[in-house]
Amino acid sequence: MNRVNVGFLGFGTVGQGAAKVLVRNALEINRRTGRDISVKSAVVRNTSRTIEPELKDVALTTDPQEIINDPDIHVVVEAMGGDEPARSLLLQAVANGKHVVTANKALIAVYGNELFEAAREHGVSVAFEAAVAGGIPVIKSIREGLAGNRIQWLAGIINGTSNFILTEMRDKQRDFNDVLEEAQALGYAEADPTFDVEGIDAAHKLTILASIAFGVPLKFDAVYTEGISHITQADTAYAQELGYRIKHLGYASHTDNGIELRVHPALIPERRLIANVDGVMNAVLVQADAVGPTMYYGAGAGAEPTGSSVVADIMDVVRLDSASVDNRVPSLAFQHDALSDTRIVSKAEFETSFYLRILVEDKPGVMADVSRILGDEKISIEAIIQKEPDADSARVPVILLTRKIVEGAMDRAIAGIEALDSVEGNVTRIRVESLA
Amino acid sequence: MNRVNVGFLGFGTVGQGAAKVLVRNALEINRRTGRDISVKSAVVRNTSRTIEPELKDVALTTDPQEIINDPDIHVVVEAMGGDEPARSLLLQAVANGKHVVTANKALIAVYGNELFEAAREHGVSVAFEAAVAGGIPVIKSIREGLAGNRIQWLAGIINGTSNFILTEMRDKQRDFNDVLEEAQALGYAEADPTFDVEGIDAAHKLTILASIAFGVPLKFDAVYTEGISHITQADTAYAQELGYRIKHLGYASHTDNGIELRVHPALIPERRLIANVDGVMNAVLVQADAVGPTMYYGAGAGAEPTGSSVVADIMDVVRLDSASVDNRVPSLAFQHDALSDTRIVSKAEFETSFYLRILVEDKPGVMADVSRILGDEKISIEAIIQKEPDADSARVPVILLTRKIVEGAMDRAIAGIEALDSVEGNVTRIRVESLA
Repeated sequence: MNRVNVGFLGFGTVGQGAAKVLVRNALEINRRTGRDISVKSAVVRNTSRTIEPELKDVALTTDPQEIINDPDIHVVVEAMGGDEPARSLLLQAVANGKHVVTANKALIAVYGNELFEAAREHGVSVAFEAAVAGGIPVIKSIREGLAGNRIQWLAGIINGTSNFILTEMRDKQRDFNDVLEEAQALGYAEADPTFDVEGIDAAHKLTILASIAFGVPLKFDAVYTEGISHITQADTAYAQELGYRIKHLGYASHTDNGIELRVHPALIPERRLIANVDGVMNAVLVQADAVGPTMYYGAGAGAEPTGSSVVADIMDVVRLDSASVDNRVPSLAFQHDALSDTRIVSKAEFETSFYLRILVEDKPGVMADVSRILGDEKISIEAIIQKEPDADSARVPVILLTRKIVEGAMDRAIAGIEALDSVEGNVTRIRVESLA
Repeated sequence: MNRVNVGFLGFGTVGQGAAKVLVRNALEINRRTGRDISVKSAVVRNTSRTIEPELKDVALTTDPQEIINDPDIHVVVEAMGGDEPARSLLLQAVANGKHVVTANKALIAVYGNELFEAAREHGVSVAFEAAVAGGIPVIKSIREGLAGNRIQWLAGIINGTSNFILTEMRDKQRDFNDVLEEAQALGYAEADPTFDVEGIDAAHKLTILASIAFGVPLKFDAVYTEGISHITQADTAYAQELGYRIKHLGYASHTDNGIELRVHPALIPERRLIANVDGVMNAVLVQADAVGPTMYYGAGAGAEPTGSSVVADIMDVVRLDSASVDNRVPSLAFQHDALSDTRIVSKAEFETSFYLRILVEDKPGVMADVSRILGDEKISIEAIIQKEPDADSARVPVILLTRKIVEGAMDRAIAGIEALDSVEGNVTRIRVESLA
């Protein structure tokens, strides 16, 4: 029976969560792999850090070099987060011939290409299932389970904080800021919520999903990214009135024009299964040529859900250690020399339907102006909701649902509408995704 | 670049579906695996069978031995269905050192233990992702993606025919027989629908899922199996009135008493995501200790969805060919010598809530009798619906929702209720699963 030793760089929530799963389920893991996988040591910022009682046998150190240079450690788990020193330490671990498992989406999305190349040179694996959608084995499913398919598009609810906020706004008629405060109190959102509510975290994850789906290098900078902070409770209610739910989506599509990479809120028909993924849960819907649509659902964050993916990755890299290097599953699903540098579609070319909320003066002729501007850009209206004037402002919110149009045309139309004297403030636009 | 040759035993819908995916996506598959995987030959019952034009280069034969004994064939795909000659041919292929991929759920559920042992002896893989839930990579997800978890229970909508029938009955207020006829016309149901509507097909799949989840040998005979042919349109409507959907479930649970294996219709709260899996689609919900609930959704049948899983399996067995035998993912997820022969829980010990539909005479005292019988077995009532008498029979349907109780007690109560003079016919019982 082989013994495998694991060292942790970072032993906070995620690190200890994974270590606890390894220790608690050691017997089950041995029954599955025929190996004893143990947690040997962990780097902490200071050794007085609170450690869960079941992890009392783990040697603690403040010096990452003790783990990276330990010849008895076979697998290094990175659970520090951020770019440095995580990036440098992992490159060093790889150079020392250690397999690497990480939950760090920012690191993979931005520095993954470099890390994978180093791993290839040194014949080790870099695994990162926990970096996307927490405990859901979605990377494995796309990379291996759907490996025979040409993937057409994928759409994911991949940020639990945003999904929690939008769910509460709709279900309980609450405002964005009110729910955000609760999410912070519950530990679902950081003190600085920018990464979550402005879509950056989702863009990291989408970058990774798109690469493994389409066989393109990681291109975080190419993702069009929009958050949810401009969505009002009224938008969630109007969407419902129209038969839709607002979800924050990561969407990647392989079109004739190239690859679309975008993160933004979207109206989704309420009959779609993914429109019913609520609270902090995540889901990724994948459309592929042979299998059609498949969906993967579960917890997108949390110590043990993330730990579940980290432990599965450890078991995988240990298993594949005995396979010839060129037969291991490639980091980005495709052989490194088979990645194609496909064109990225610009925002002006995105083609979707739109939900528009426009605040207009309640007087004749305004709607005629709006309709004329839309008509000039060949934008057709599919549905319209006109509300009573707001008591205090005598302005009327008008909600329009358009047919599909390229975003460049919509940009021009919105500029025209916002320039009208009878229109107040900015037009709220939310894309509509039928996802079928 | 290695060339891999695949031979097909059986070239009907499933066989040709898989072969078409291999041929159409050959470039994509090469980009992923770095190998050329080709379809060399196929066994057909007679060589005048209609073959899809893109498969015209596949050599056809009526003699399986030509494939099984062909030294140039590395992987044999079995797509014949049924037990013999599939079983004997696969044992022979394995003895000849060929990896085997099959979509045959009945074969794996009943003869899997024997086939896996033979494969182990000869150092080859037997892969069967396509045997459960068609194109959904649920075996891979449970066996590898959740490998760090102790799995507590799983519940699957794993027969598309039954799900289509129940969905239509509810959505369009149609009768069972009426929808069954349509399903047959659409090709969703066989001329003899017994395997689908009586739960046998689902029991085959549940057998496989339970083994890979809990590490127990395949025990098809131990599955309690009940179909949907006794469900009426009225039941689907009453369930909806109570806030539930009726789904045909495969349910396996690791309890303190042992392992529960059961296939039957169940009422599921309509807010659960899995309750919204409609039509011919499949889904498997898995509850595990670290990750919590995860769900896998997609097409459970069809030529190319099944082909998607067959092709992924071919890619996997080719990849793992270079790994040491004891490092390959075990057929039943756990090392063969680590399977545990856990006790199977008997039907009388199942503990669920129940939906009961009782047809009673519309006269005083009947409900008191029913309540007394339930009370004697310590069965509490959670909800009750009493309808107006049927115009022609002067009998009233009474619908009860009970709290949790062991099935042995419910059996006795139902026997008592059916013995009442004022009760007509049999009591309809449907289990209720909250799945949370």
